[in-house]
Amino acid sequence: MPSTPANAPLLVHFEAGTLGNWATTHLLPQIGEVLPSAPRLNIALDEKSGSAVWALKGVVSSLRYTTRAEAVDLLARSEGLGRPAATRGVLIPIRKSPAWWALAQDERRAIYEEQSRHTSIGMKYLPHIARRLHHSRDLSEPFDFLTWFEFAPAHEAAFDALLGELRASTEWTYVDREVEFRFDRVA
Amino acid sequence: MPSTPANAPLLVHFEAGTLGNWATTHLLPQIGEVLPSAPRLNIALDEKSGSAVWALKGVVSSLRYTTRAEAVDLLARSEGLGRPAATRGVLIPIRKSPAWWALAQDERRAIYEEQSRHTSIGMKYLPHIARRLHHSRDLSEPFDFLTWFEFAPAHEAAFDALLGELRASTEWTYVDREVEFRFDRVA
Repeated sequence: MPSTPANAPLLVHFEAGTLGNWATTHLLPQIGEVLPSAPRLNIALDEKSGSAVWALKGVVSSLRYTTRAEAVDLLARSEGLGRPAATRGVLIPIRKSPAWWALAQDERRAIYEEQSRHTSIGMKYLPHIARRLHHSRDLSEPFDFLTWFEFAPAHEAAFDALLGELRASTEWTYVDREVEFRFDRVA
Repeated sequence: MPSTPANAPLLVHFEAGTLGNWATTHLLPQIGEVLPSAPRLNIALDEKSGSAVWALKGVVSSLRYTTRAEAVDLLARSEGLGRPAATRGVLIPIRKSPAWWALAQDERRAIYEEQSRHTSIGMKYLPHIARRLHHSRDLSEPFDFLTWFEFAPAHEAAFDALLGELRASTEWTYVDREVEFRFDRVA
């Protein structure tokens, strides 16, 4: 059999149920079919339970639109997940429309950054709003992307402003399903 | 549970064993660990057998480097898979190195096309050499890409020239595992 890949992207499982370190505080339906709520969210590198209310997964993979110059800026300004003060967590699964996926790479990049300033908007809120993008589209999942955010409660208004900017962008006209969950970290 | 995605990429399974419409004629090791040979290759949208000598899978997904102008050219010149005269099939699984995946999108695109002319080289051999790219990297697979080619026996020398051009490119210095299998279609 083939050997294990040396450079495999990190596969992350998000499971809603009764397990996990994140307690659900808000379920905020946005676009299209919603997901059910559950008391807890478990984030893990393996599947934990057969009893999850819902389970989503995605891979932390190569970024599809980020240039080297942008990557250097992002890295310089970013702090990682897991900071002790960052006790708010938000999970936003989104799916983009067939029209988005019918675009070519240069057209998607132009909408993503030159028109919608997706990377630039996210950059403004660093390092307070940490995020990690998980790609799900190639995994036969119901969503294309799962974005996980962490920040301190004092920065929740800034987080709301970040979401407002992104949701007002041209890029978001291509989002055809979106659900938002907010959580508090529990000991 | 979440609904089935409307825009899911096509997941394709390649299984080597005793089943399938493609009879193995050549196993040509290229770079790194080889795969074992088997009499037949089965290509299907579902997993067929538990007895495969090896099984690989990939998704026909959005193209990561192709511009709209290139996509228009490719579509105009391409014929599909399954042409009756195209009785030769070739499967080339490749993996790219960690150094490749550490590059940003603009750096990968520059090597892929501006330096290595990957799309332009493939274009020269259309419509005779049909191909379909399957993305495997995000699926925790041992290879990053599976490329499937189909052509008539009369065009095998052209196919060899195509491979020679690609393998001489800068892009190929980032390939750290590659295996080539050739097949004849059987009734």
